[in-house]
Amino acid sequence: MSDNDFLFMRRAIGLSLESVKKGGGPFGAVIVRNGEILAESSNLVIALNDPTAHAEINAIREAARKLDTFDLSGCVIYASCEPCPMCLGAIYWARIDKVVFANTTSDAQNIGFADSRIYKEISRPPQERDIEFRQLLREEALKAFKAWDESENKIEY
Amino acid sequence: MSDNDFLFMRRAIGLSLESVKKGGGPFGAVIVRNGEILAESSNLVIALNDPTAHAEINAIREAARKLDTFDLSGCVIYASCEPCPMCLGAIYWARIDKVVFANTTSDAQNIGFADSRIYKEISRPPQERDIEFRQLLREEALKAFKAWDESENKIEY
Repeated sequence: MSDNDFLFMRRAIGLSLESVKKGGGPFGAVIVRNGEILAESSNLVIALNDPTAHAEINAIREAARKLDTFDLSGCVIYASCEPCPMCLGAIYWARIDKVVFANTTSDAQNIGFADSRIYKEISRPPQERDIEFRQLLREEALKAFKAWDESENKIEY
Repeated sequence: MSDNDFLFMRRAIGLSLESVKKGGGPFGAVIVRNGEILAESSNLVIALNDPTAHAEINAIREAARKLDTFDLSGCVIYASCEPCPMCLGAIYWARIDKVVFANTTSDAQNIGFADSRIYKEISRPPQERDIEFRQLLREEALKAFKAWDESENKIEY
């Protein structure tokens, strides 16, 4: 860990503290590229009434907007808490290289957040989850997959 | 499964087919409340250069905007493909009641999407994942969690 790692993590933690003062969730995230902050955010779920507006998701969206690409290869994300499954999924889709975190999902669980529960749910087969899962019309839906697969000018993401 | 289930899934599949024609990913999602479509979207990752713009995420954000709340209890999501971990996480955070899907993550894997790989990665401990995970400054970050925990007027989400 370098001095910069501490610097960027302290920025993420600072965002999490500011967020609580404004009535938001206690989470902050910073995305760094080439040693500079590219994007940053706190949790904005309550401010925006958007259940997806976690700090990491907001920062990823801003970074992608700034670079004008969905591919954030070469970026590092500093998150004041270990990313939840939603944010971790986004980190993989965005091809971020590295995750530095401070608090853990257990810490989040201890103050009432559902991160640990959602990790457990996601690791279960669909039919064993708390939420009801039903499958139908796979054969019809496969037509779109076949069309994509056969498309010659598709952009893979 | 009712006639409406088939109707809404066919709409989600229709969106996935239209998306491929426009050069987008082969995915569509519809959110239904009280038997009516509240929000819908196709995958817009390429169109928006936003790695988080999966059909389900877009539809959840639109539904939350329309209802002006982060809580989508009472809603059902119809997804043309089994949601990826990012979207499934969002479904839990949004408190959606039920998921109806058509294609599976294996089907998505067969045409080159990383859903299955991301499911495997997320179920591993951080230090065993393909992406490097490092922890630092937990004690400092816990201050924000303590501040949230002790806040009397916090809105839990």
